[in-house]
Parts: sequence; C-alpha cells; structure tokens
Amino acid sequence: MTTVNDHTTSTVELTDEEIFRAHEGGKLGIEVTTPLTDPRALSIAYTPGVARVSRAIADDAALAARYTWTNRLVAVVSDGTAVLGLGDIGPRASLPVMEGKSALFKQFGGLDSIPLVLDTTDVDEIVETLVRLRPSFGAVNLEDISAPRCFELEDRLVEALDCPVMHDDQHGTAIVVLAALRGASTVLGRQLAELKVVVSGAGAAGVACARILLAAGVGEVVVLDSRGIIHPARDGLNPIKAELAESTNPRRLSGGPAEALKGADVFVGLSASTVAEELVASMAPGAIVFALSNPDPEIHPAVAARHAAVVATGRSDFPNQINNVLAFPGVFRGALDAGARRITERMKLAAAEAIVGVVGDDLAPDRIVPSPLDPRVGPAVAAAVARAAREDGVA
Amino acid sequence: MTTVNDHTTSTVELTDEEIFRAHEGGKLGIEVTTPLTDPRALSIAYTPGVARVSRAIADDAALAARYTWTNRLVAVVSDGTAVLGLGDIGPRASLPVMEGKSALFKQFGGLDSIPLVLDTTDVDEIVETLVRLRPSFGAVNLEDISAPRCFELEDRLVEALDCPVMHDDQHGTAIVVLAALRGASTVLGRQLAELKVVVSGAGAAGVACARILLAAGVGEVVVLDSRGIIHPARDGLNPIKAELAESTNPRRLSGGPAEALKGADVFVGLSASTVAEELVASMAPGAIVFALSNPDPEIHPAVAARHAAVVATGRSDFPNQINNVLAFPGVFRGALDAGARRITERMKLAAAEAIVGVVGDDLAPDRIVPSPLDPRVGPAVAAAVARAAREDGVA
Repeated sequence: MTTVNDHTTSTVELTDEEIFRAHEGGKLGIEVTTPLTDPRALSIAYTPGVARVSRAIADDAALAARYTWTNRLVAVVSDGTAVLGLGDIGPRASLPVMEGKSALFKQFGGLDSIPLVLDTTDVDEIVETLVRLRPSFGAVNLEDISAPRCFELEDRLVEALDCPVMHDDQHGTAIVVLAALRGASTVLGRQLAELKVVVSGAGAAGVACARILLAAGVGEVVVLDSRGIIHPARDGLNPIKAELAESTNPRRLSGGPAEALKGADVFVGLSASTVAEELVASMAPGAIVFALSNPDPEIHPAVAARHAAVVATGRSDFPNQINNVLAFPGVFRGALDAGARRITERMKLAAAEAIVGVVGDDLAPDRIVPSPLDPRVGPAVAAAVARAAREDGVA
Repeated sequence: MTTVNDHTTSTVELTDEEIFRAHEGGKLGIEVTTPLTDPRALSIAYTPGVARVSRAIADDAALAARYTWTNRLVAVVSDGTAVLGLGDIGPRASLPVMEGKSALFKQFGGLDSIPLVLDTTDVDEIVETLVRLRPSFGAVNLEDISAPRCFELEDRLVEALDCPVMHDDQHGTAIVVLAALRGASTVLGRQLAELKVVVSGAGAAGVACARILLAAGVGEVVVLDSRGIIHPARDGLNPIKAELAESTNPRRLSGGPAEALKGADVFVGLSASTVAEELVASMAPGAIVFALSNPDPEIHPAVAARHAAVVATGRSDFPNQINNVLAFPGVFRGALDAGARRITERMKLAAAEAIVGVVGDDLAPDRIVPSPLDPRVGPAVAAAVARAAREDGVA
C-alpha cells in the first residue's frame, strides 16, 4: 500500500491492484498520424509515394527533420543501474519508469519518445550503441544511470552525437532546484550571491546542482557526501569530487553535516540520508530547506518549518514540490524546436528562470515553484530554452 | 508525379505536394494509454506507484511482458541498404519507409512498433546493437537490408535473440507468394506437387520464395539470377546460391530465362528485370504469372494475360495484388500473442494458408488473394500463426 495526498481530497491510498491495473500492457502506444484506410492513402503514405520522400532525404539529409518524426523524438535511455530509490534493478525492470517518462514527455512537452533500455552497463558500449542508432531519434534523455558512470557517459555522448543529450537525474533536478532557490530567494528578499548553500549528496543530482548553483552566481556552495564535507585535502576523491573540491567550499570547511550546516542559508538534500532537527536549527535565520529525498524527505517538512522560512520536498503531498517534470519536457522541446546541437549552461539557466517566471506574482513561501501539472510550464520553458540556444549559437 | 489507380475512381495522380504534405512531421506519434492528468493518476503511473511495478519485474522478469509495452512492440530495423527500388540510400532516407511499415503494423496487426535505423552496415555490429537493446522490444522485423548480408544477419539474430525475428523482404514476400500460388492452383484445379515454378531473382525475396515453395511441396523450383539458371556446375556461387543449386532445379537445367520458362507452369518475378512476351507464350498451357517487380512489373499484366490463366502483380491498380502487408502484421501479432521465441517454417506455411483462406469461396482468377486492405486478414493470420507456434512447441 502506497500513501499519497492528491491535494484535492486529502490522503488517499493506492492499492497494489490499482497500480498494477494501470500498468497492464504498458503505458505507451504508437499512433498513426497519416491515414492508411484506402488504397489511395496507402499509395501516398507507403509505396509508391514514400519513395519520393526517401529520395528527397537521400539528396538532402536535413529534410529528415521535416519529413520524419525524429525532430520531435527523444530516446529515453537507461541501463537500469540507479532506478528511483530501487538501485540497480536492471533494464527490464526499469522499463515501466521509462514508459512513464515518455508519457510525461508527451503530456507536458508534446514530444514523442521511445524508451531504449540497454542490456549493458559499459560506457563504451552504450555510447557505441547510441552512435549507431543516431539517425533514429532527435535527442537523448539519459535516465537512472548510476554515478559516477553517468558523468562520463553524458560527456562522451555530448561529444559523439550532434544532438541534444541530457542526463535528467543531473540537470533536470539541478534546473528545478535552481528555479526553487530563485523563487525562495525572491520571496525572502535575498540575493543568490549572498547565500551559503549546503548540497547533501554527491551523486548525479548533487554534483549537477552544485555546478548550476555556482553558474547561477550563488555565493557559497559546500557539498557533503557520505564521508562528510568535500574539500581538497580529503583522500581518495574521484575526479568528479576532486573537481568539486576545488570549485566549491571557498572557506575550506571540513567535517560533517554539523560543520556544514552551522550558519548556512540553504540546505539541499539529494541523498537518502536524514538530517537532525538540531542541525536545521543551527542554520542562519530565515533558512531555506529543500528535503528532496524520495519517498522519505531528509527531515519532515513540518519539523523543518519550525526553523526554516521556506521548506520544499519532492513529494506531491506537501507544498513546494520540486519535480523534474517542471524542467525536462520544456528543455527538450525548446532544444528540438530550435534545432539545437546540444544543451548549454545558458539553456539550463534560462529554463530555471522560466519555471519560476510562471509563478509570477503568486510567489509565496508555500509557492516557490509552479505545480508539476501546470500546463503553462512546458511551453514557457521551451520558449526560453529555444531563445537561449539561439543566443548561444548552438541552433 | 506518381500515377496509381485506387480501384474506386479510376486512375488518379499523386502530386509531389500531396505526398510531401502527408509526410510532414513524420507519420507516427506516441500515445499515452494511462491518464496523467491529476496528481493521483501521476502517483499511480509514475512515482511512487511505478516503483511497485519495477520491483515486481526485478523479482520476476516474465512480468515485463505483462506490465510494459514490449509484448506487442516490434522493432522495425533497417540499415537502409536496399530500400524499395532505390537501393542503398542510407538509414536516414530509409526512415519514411520504416515509419510507413510501423503504421501498417498498427493498422493491420494492432501492434506498436518503433523504427530503428542504423548507421552501420556491419552484420556483427547490427547483431551486437540489437542484443544490447533486447529488453526494449518484443520482436524484430528486418527491413530493406541488402542480400546476401540479409541472410547471415537474420540467421545470426535468430540465434542471438530469444524472440521472433523475421526479415520481411524475404519471408513476408515468400508467404504471400505461396498464398497466391495456393489461390491460383485452387482456381485452376492444380496441385502444388505437379507444378514447375520458375523464380526470377535470387535476392532476399527470391531465395525465401524458393525455400518456402519447396517446403510447401511444390514439384519443381528453378531459380534464375542475372547470370541465368542456378545449377550446381556454375562457377562462383555464393554459399546461399550454392545451397539453392542443390535444393532446386532437379532436372539440372542450365541456360537463361528461355530455357527456364519453356514448359513451366508458374513464373514468379522478383527481380527488376523484364520478361519477353514470347517467353511467357512458351510456358505450359494454363500458366500462372506473378510479375511482382515494383513499380514496373516484369511484363505488363494485360500482355501476360494473353498466354496465362492467372496473372498477379505487386501493384494496387491491377487485380491480384501480392503485397507483404497481407502477411507481416498477422505473423508478428500471432507470434507475440503466443509468446513464441522464434518464427518457424510451420508458422509461415500456416500464415499463407490463412491468407488464402480469407478469400474462401470468392476465389477466382482475378481474386487469388484478399485485398491488402481487407481487415479480416490480420486476425486470421495471427490466429493461424499462434496455433502453429504452439504446435511447434516454440510458444
């Protein structure tokens, strides 16, 4: 039994029967957008008519974007190594999540997508596979791939493919966290440049969040992993963490969560750990707490609210839900609409601003981001991302 | 300008404008079959509900067939090396054809499918790619892959994958040719065992036709390629043709089309060549001529009809259209419905019988197969194929 709150009715219970029934036969289908119901239609959409279209693309490859579905098609790619909170459950078991992701792409971005789950966890092999499949799609959304492999895989794919590639667990999360931090700062009358932010977790989401917050001009970022504060003097840092150690933690703090949180303005929880109430109490006045671990936040939002001015979680049954669906449909839609060859830092920053822009004058401590179901978000993000792509010269 | 006849209005002309307009944006889309419109639905179809389904599949991989779309999902795979009559135009230019194929799968088999076009023509690499993608689909339809690579590729994939794999240009064509030959034989009161059949063309379709006709008990099969009749004494036969030389041509004929057709009962044209009227005139009385080259039949059907009792083509503007769409949607649907691990000879033979069975008592010289648009064909073929799969013990 899984318990959620749907905002409208109070807490409701999802039974296993109800969940499994909704997934029966999968959640996706193919729809045919050109009629095939009479011989003439068949002659247009298939032989002999289709030969004209194929010959035109053979003469000018750029026409594939216009006369096939690839220009709005995202490959949702996973190897099943870091699925939700379930860990390495393999590609087959990850497929219901990828189908759900495809459904969200359609619903909130108007984009088609196909889940491609891979029976290999080798970075070279995944890159090679997607390079071979390149003519089949227009963009790649990497999903639920374990760290630190996910960093190398994304870098390699960005290099190898001339199309938008984004690991959503990194950048989708980072974009929405930045949007929420902008919303919270505005509500509290604070500037990003004056904030001390602690990011708890140095996996896919934590690393990307630290990076985007620095790019957005946040004053100080300190990152915690399971061994404590990341700083240059620590032994055994992998290359990703060694880079973080240099770019973050300007005061060269060491220690654990207590040392990190004391006097901090913002806590961003992106690990499966917990944070004690007294640590939140030790933060600076008017603190911001994002307890994003799912399904169990690092601290209950009601407890955090005793000490913090703004609290957000990843759950739909509390205010301020920080959910990637606010970002990825619009980011990919904007990148594809613009014909962008890649997704740049500027495009991500623009997405974050567009998300918080949708809330507009309704910004409040319990409304720092729009609802994940707000239909205005996708188009607003897409427009901002497309504009940023053109400004960056990648479209 | 492409000219076709739609049976209902007389000859109509397809303008380029009309063709390209119908292909604008491609011919496929993704539809979401589970609602995502409110927080509760989202909690069922995505997090947290989906985790229950993923965990169940992690515990029992067989549940993927039930709770994902893979069990009705066909990968339509091409490397673009032998596209329609256009030849090696590459994967990008082949995509409109593959989208058309997917549309036909949906329309006539009720199956979902995704076009996967590959930027490699290396058999090892194509096999490797599909093995890595195996958890993403339920079956593989190979399409427009050049001979003789297509034979090795199909054999290797059947070996490597535990799911139905079929190269449609081979077996789809072969099944429908056999169905048409059964229909014509019945109309003419002939037995397959007494027929002398000449297959013109030793590419994908010709080889598969020769094989299925032998398996169905046709009395004599002789195969022609561009160098003439295939017989064991010929130099330089590739392994596929060397095998054909042994299994066909029992009288060990040599020479060209004239020697092959003299006294033959059936001509099956599967090459882009032509056949002269006097050669058709040299066939046995009551001859059957399938001039299947597209868009230009090996001999105009009106000319062939001066000497033959039954004439068929691949075109929609003459009677007796021999079109793969009569076979592949039902073959894959039946194989997937039965949970078949592969597609056997018996399943193909059953498909051919089911196709001609749909015509039933309406069999006539100008109606030896059903219309490609007859909605009864797909379900009839699927049922026969599923039954044959169970009889063969592959389901």
